[in-house]
Amino acid sequence: MTSLAGATQDEVRRANLSTVLRLLHQDGPQTRSHITAVTGLNRSTVGDLVSALAVLGLVRERSGDIRGVGRPSLVVEPVPGSAVVLALDLRVERTVAALVGLGGQVFARAERQHHDGDQSTLIAEVTQVSHEVLAEIPPGASWVGTGVGVPGVVRTRDGLVRFAPNLGWTDVPLGDLLRASVGGGSGDVLIRNDADLGVLAEHMRGSARDSSTVLYLGGDVGVGGGLFVDGRPLVGAGGYGGEVGHMRVRPDGHTCRCGARGCWETEIGLAGLLRAAGREHVRDISVTDLVTAAREGDAAARAAFESVGDWLGIGLVNLVNLLNPQSIVLGGHLSAIYAMAPDRVASQLQTALPAARELVEVCSSHLGGDATLVGAAEVAFTTVLDDPVGALNSSVAS
Amino acid sequence: MTSLAGATQDEVRRANLSTVLRLLHQDGPQTRSHITAVTGLNRSTVGDLVSALAVLGLVRERSGDIRGVGRPSLVVEPVPGSAVVLALDLRVERTVAALVGLGGQVFARAERQHHDGDQSTLIAEVTQVSHEVLAEIPPGASWVGTGVGVPGVVRTRDGLVRFAPNLGWTDVPLGDLLRASVGGGSGDVLIRNDADLGVLAEHMRGSARDSSTVLYLGGDVGVGGGLFVDGRPLVGAGGYGGEVGHMRVRPDGHTCRCGARGCWETEIGLAGLLRAAGREHVRDISVTDLVTAAREGDAAARAAFESVGDWLGIGLVNLVNLLNPQSIVLGGHLSAIYAMAPDRVASQLQTALPAARELVEVCSSHLGGDATLVGAAEVAFTTVLDDPVGALNSSVAS
Repeated sequence: MTSLAGATQDEVRRANLSTVLRLLHQDGPQTRSHITAVTGLNRSTVGDLVSALAVLGLVRERSGDIRGVGRPSLVVEPVPGSAVVLALDLRVERTVAALVGLGGQVFARAERQHHDGDQSTLIAEVTQVSHEVLAEIPPGASWVGTGVGVPGVVRTRDGLVRFAPNLGWTDVPLGDLLRASVGGGSGDVLIRNDADLGVLAEHMRGSARDSSTVLYLGGDVGVGGGLFVDGRPLVGAGGYGGEVGHMRVRPDGHTCRCGARGCWETEIGLAGLLRAAGREHVRDISVTDLVTAAREGDAAARAAFESVGDWLGIGLVNLVNLLNPQSIVLGGHLSAIYAMAPDRVASQLQTALPAARELVEVCSSHLGGDATLVGAAEVAFTTVLDDPVGALNSSVAS
Repeated sequence: MTSLAGATQDEVRRANLSTVLRLLHQDGPQTRSHITAVTGLNRSTVGDLVSALAVLGLVRERSGDIRGVGRPSLVVEPVPGSAVVLALDLRVERTVAALVGLGGQVFARAERQHHDGDQSTLIAEVTQVSHEVLAEIPPGASWVGTGVGVPGVVRTRDGLVRFAPNLGWTDVPLGDLLRASVGGGSGDVLIRNDADLGVLAEHMRGSARDSSTVLYLGGDVGVGGGLFVDGRPLVGAGGYGGEVGHMRVRPDGHTCRCGARGCWETEIGLAGLLRAAGREHVRDISVTDLVTAAREGDAAARAAFESVGDWLGIGLVNLVNLLNPQSIVLGGHLSAIYAMAPDRVASQLQTALPAARELVEVCSSHLGGDATLVGAAEVAFTTVLDDPVGALNSSVAS
């Protein structure tokens, strides 16, 4: 309601341009009449909006496939090389970078392992891999923003990483550091929690496109949660919501790196899984190694997946009862735990309240390891999608 | 964004009428210039909107207090006797009914204890207390809706109570039953979870008016949660979100009435508190009795408040980490636990992640036992506040 109060013609037009561009960016090429049907706008308004976006170079029209004998209809499509973003997935052991065009086309992609070193070494590595993909910006393209996913609690306003235990970071001004060393083109450098980007990606382009309430749970070393509730990201008072790994599900249990006892992460995080398998002291063992061992009949590995499967299910019950989601998407090693012990997870889920339990579907991420990277690109596109004219003008001016 | 797409003049006017009426309903009498400042609408638009609402009888203008020598300014105020709602707080042991006018004035209030009996006995008691307050509808007033709070999981679409363990209900069509026996005037009978109404009330008229993320935790017999996140109620896929009492915080603990083990409610619900005090077999003991005993030095009662205070804090940590609220408002017996063991609650809260912990304030409900009743009135006013012209016209037509 409030958003309509005092809306001017200009605001309405900006919102309509945004609606049309977002639709093309997300759903790809489509006819004007399809745009008319989906947006509820009338035909002449859609024609005018498409023309305005074409003048900016963001979309173009081409003849559609000729089916039957009728006149071929025009198809509107986003122009990938018109506006591009830099997407970064900064993980504990490596950083993945991609240069992504409007509509989702990937122009370049690179990875770089992190070496042991301090924070400035890591920032130098992130900077280097960024410049590697930025060298591939197509001629004539506007670089409109940079999005970065990081495994930690982030103050989104300026990109201060408040707490990233697996990186050993407290209050690191990652936004400012990357603004200085990499930049955001004509836009900003936006730092976000990795799982928050994961849920955005799963909702926009992944397993949960039709769900208005989606939980994405990513397991890398720790366990992060991105919550998309009632059609939008759950943010909270300071933007710190979604720390599912730190639900205390076993208050007399193990001490977590956050200092509390019995956080969910102590049971279902990588360390918890290895401990359950009696392999907490084995060096360089991966989840894949443990899956292989279990498949080959190793009793301790199998038992570990089953007992950790129970704990995965117990925490999911809490989230189902609290948030009543349609989809829970499991990424990283949580996806492996679910694959190895689906019955244990399902059996714990039976203890959720029936009304909420009946509506939820649990699945593994379709985007696999790329959910955070895809989400980083999407958040970087926000400015141009929200206000195409304003963003492109500031890009020309800069 | 989407809400603006294709907005017509009529829609904008309806939204503006709604904005102005909601402001007067919630904040009380104020000058036109104050309305202009708060809404961002221009003066002539505000004048026109106020006149339209005055023609409907919903607001009126009167001379304000004369301060100094200037011309007294006109004050716009809601007319309490123009539109009224029936509000019901259906609890385990009794029902409270109120007849509430626009702006929040209470015209009548009545309570009725429930006797042992089946569901139809209880519905008859609720019907009787409703008719008692409906007899007090002022002449000329339109009865525009009925709101009902109930301690259970509710399908809001039609008011089916899916699960209310403390009433012994499963799939009771409370909405249909009360539509037949009581009605909603020109509006509907809206059934809601009691804590969902509690958080609405605390956000609109209580302890958390300025918070965009508020958790209301009500303790009657069980423990219910109403979550208001990022400026609006958390709903979830089926409207069943917010069942905080069924977070499993001690999976090897006591069996809950929902069937699961170790739900938060088993530790901090009334039964858990009495068990901790060694009084689970004492008949008709109340929380007030236990508070009195503890204040008079009863060691078991004191220890019970302290250990249950720990459990209260542990569950709050989960909610703080997940939802990053500004305010947590405790109602019912949870408020008593907090009052008796504030240090234990605070000490557990220290284990929440610092970024989220720093922002949260825990307090007791200012509305006391009336939070659900106030929320029930507010939800019943929704139709007239969303579309004053449409709602009043349908009231005249019916």
